[in-house]
Amino acid sequence: MNAHDAVEVISTKRDGGALSRSQISWVVDAYTKGVVADEQMSALAMAILLNGMDGREIADWTEAMIASGERMDFSTLSRPTADKHSTGGVGDKITLPLAPLVAACGVAVPQLSGRGLGHTGGTLDKLESIPGWRATLSNEEMLAQLESVGAVICAAGDGLAPADRKLYALRDVTGTVEAIPLIASSIMSKKIAEGTGALVLDVKVGSGAFMKDVDRARELAEVMVALGSNAGVTTVALLTDMDVPLGLTAGNAIEVAESVEVLAGGGPPDVVELTLALAREMLAGAGVTDVDPADRLADGSAMDAWKAMIRAQGGDPDAPLPTARESHVVTADAGGVLTRLDALAVGIAAWRLGAGRERKEDPVQAGAGVVWHARPGDAVTAGQPLFTLLTDTPERFDRALAALDGGYRIDPPGTSYDARPLVIDRVGEVAPVQR
Amino acid sequence: MNAHDAVEVISTKRDGGALSRSQISWVVDAYTKGVVADEQMSALAMAILLNGMDGREIADWTEAMIASGERMDFSTLSRPTADKHSTGGVGDKITLPLAPLVAACGVAVPQLSGRGLGHTGGTLDKLESIPGWRATLSNEEMLAQLESVGAVICAAGDGLAPADRKLYALRDVTGTVEAIPLIASSIMSKKIAEGTGALVLDVKVGSGAFMKDVDRARELAEVMVALGSNAGVTTVALLTDMDVPLGLTAGNAIEVAESVEVLAGGGPPDVVELTLALAREMLAGAGVTDVDPADRLADGSAMDAWKAMIRAQGGDPDAPLPTARESHVVTADAGGVLTRLDALAVGIAAWRLGAGRERKEDPVQAGAGVVWHARPGDAVTAGQPLFTLLTDTPERFDRALAALDGGYRIDPPGTSYDARPLVIDRVGEVAPVQR
Repeated sequence: MNAHDAVEVISTKRDGGALSRSQISWVVDAYTKGVVADEQMSALAMAILLNGMDGREIADWTEAMIASGERMDFSTLSRPTADKHSTGGVGDKITLPLAPLVAACGVAVPQLSGRGLGHTGGTLDKLESIPGWRATLSNEEMLAQLESVGAVICAAGDGLAPADRKLYALRDVTGTVEAIPLIASSIMSKKIAEGTGALVLDVKVGSGAFMKDVDRARELAEVMVALGSNAGVTTVALLTDMDVPLGLTAGNAIEVAESVEVLAGGGPPDVVELTLALAREMLAGAGVTDVDPADRLADGSAMDAWKAMIRAQGGDPDAPLPTARESHVVTADAGGVLTRLDALAVGIAAWRLGAGRERKEDPVQAGAGVVWHARPGDAVTAGQPLFTLLTDTPERFDRALAALDGGYRIDPPGTSYDARPLVIDRVGEVAPVQR
Repeated sequence: MNAHDAVEVISTKRDGGALSRSQISWVVDAYTKGVVADEQMSALAMAILLNGMDGREIADWTEAMIASGERMDFSTLSRPTADKHSTGGVGDKITLPLAPLVAACGVAVPQLSGRGLGHTGGTLDKLESIPGWRATLSNEEMLAQLESVGAVICAAGDGLAPADRKLYALRDVTGTVEAIPLIASSIMSKKIAEGTGALVLDVKVGSGAFMKDVDRARELAEVMVALGSNAGVTTVALLTDMDVPLGLTAGNAIEVAESVEVLAGGGPPDVVELTLALAREMLAGAGVTDVDPADRLADGSAMDAWKAMIRAQGGDPDAPLPTARESHVVTADAGGVLTRLDALAVGIAAWRLGAGRERKEDPVQAGAGVVWHARPGDAVTAGQPLFTLLTDTPERFDRALAALDGGYRIDPPGTSYDARPLVIDRVGEVAPVQR
């Protein structure tokens, strides 16, 4: 006899009740094993989306997802660990400079990343544009690299929270992605199973993000911070703007190039600002308070860590990056002030140019993407280049241009532009050292 | 390119919107064809259950279910047609005397019925206890029998609303049975596709029914009456009591025997009362106002129609009915007044004795069931038989007795009992002639 059955669990949530710990652990385990069918789990997911879950239920759900697979253990490392997770944005290459920067400050960064789906890019897709670099490491290779280099960015193994992989694919086709309890438990089950000591969440808010408004983003952040803290992971979240794309590039190789500029002490100010803000949170979470990460950018040690990290995974950090075969420039049809640059429009344009994939088995183009030559608030002159579109397959230009159409706006010269701050809010307990 | 996709349709309902006619017809058709997957339809069903549907959406959904299959046509018959549908109760054998009775009054009854699942019995299971009787007829046989005999009770063909069959099976395992829009469209799509001119709905309310409270039952009745009326079917609904089981028997052959008693002019008063009330509604709906069905019971013409109907489908109405091999009598342990006889308890006991099935492929026992020897309000003496349990498989007695335990109550002699009226309410326009 089973302790529970699927209809009973579904009915409890359908009727507005709280699922017991026993119901949750049964249903997650039974779903992972195929005893609970997809059509039953999707009905439950919709009931969760519409009727919600309390904090205890979310914690139990997360724990059940962790229990579906293996847990990693970094306790043998000689230094503390800190990881970062972004909920996904356009031009969000921050992981690339951030991981080696934090490693250069003495904290190990075990960054398990994913590939992109839809208009937000994937960290692994970006790094795979580097000749020779490989995303797949064994647990032993990962541990060795964390000890020697201090930073790893690699693909999550199949053993980590397999329930999440199965459930995420189901939610994607059943309109049940947008449930905060399921989003939070999906992210946090992997990060807790990964075994990091500290975690910083970059919760994106705006048109190019999954969360369009600040209140929903804050709710998600609070749920995740509570989950992490309860599991013994020092966790904070920054709510950061994603109405405007980050930096000046959205794609793969072009984002790597921009990241290397930051590591070289340059790069777009917003990318530098967010990289440093997240680095300070990670260091604080790991208990390292005597290092200023800005110094590590300036003294070249972050760049050294980057090169070591890329080399350790078979990549050549000094090799030329691939470029797109075709380009198309969009110019300003009037002079004035750029007052709008919509992250979603840019993200979809880059995706359509081949930087992203429509199905998870599709390849991506290393050289494809969008470069923008002005950011909101910048003055532009008639005829100046606003965007450069890059792709190997020029038949993609039309649909990319259609995505950009209406995604930016030039107002008369002198129009003022009030930018939303890049870091909108912070959720969590331990405040980092401010400099 | 498809006009719609599943996630878009699910998201509309998830977010509280109304589905367009085009979305509904697309999703029902695509689900029937297997383009929309079970896990997508179950998420949509849960969203419909929790967020509801307005009258226009329910009408469009019903129409899409009808359009998934064939429609029958009785317009060539020489007499008007009327049908009855019960939402299912315990001891609910009313269809058996009702169909021949209404036929004897000059109205043809094309009764497509189902088999039982769970604690409520199935009309076809009951009739199959008659030696030789067969439930499956071709459309041509059905039409010929309606012309010659005036009544048919047979299995619905696979061609009628196939979307409903598929969706019903899905709802059963995903906790989405209890959605009024889906219940109403499931029932009404088959009745409208069947092509009856008038329809009377017997919406059961109480412990032994699907609807436990009057307000929900009335809501369901109103939705179904509106659906029927909008589709050109003269439709009324009676809300009738199902806290107490109907008559004195719940099973298969024993319910046939009780029905024959009613057709012979006897039988339990409540079965006679409900049969006549439904017959009057069916006759009124069919425009026949000059016949009193009570006369047709008295003059033997309803019994003649019954025998003709059974013979036309291969049965021998005069053959002895099968009996159970084993019986067990439950006696009153004290004298007094029976103040409670719970329909659900009796239904589950009959089911466990073998009168019903647990899975749709299971057989039923023709002779199994429960006979009760007193009804609420009756005086009982200590030691008198209260129940006779019948089965071919005596190992079933224990679980049946467990179901009855707590399902009845004897209070001290003289305790008053206020019965709820059998017909609680009526929803619909055309009032029948009262005699």
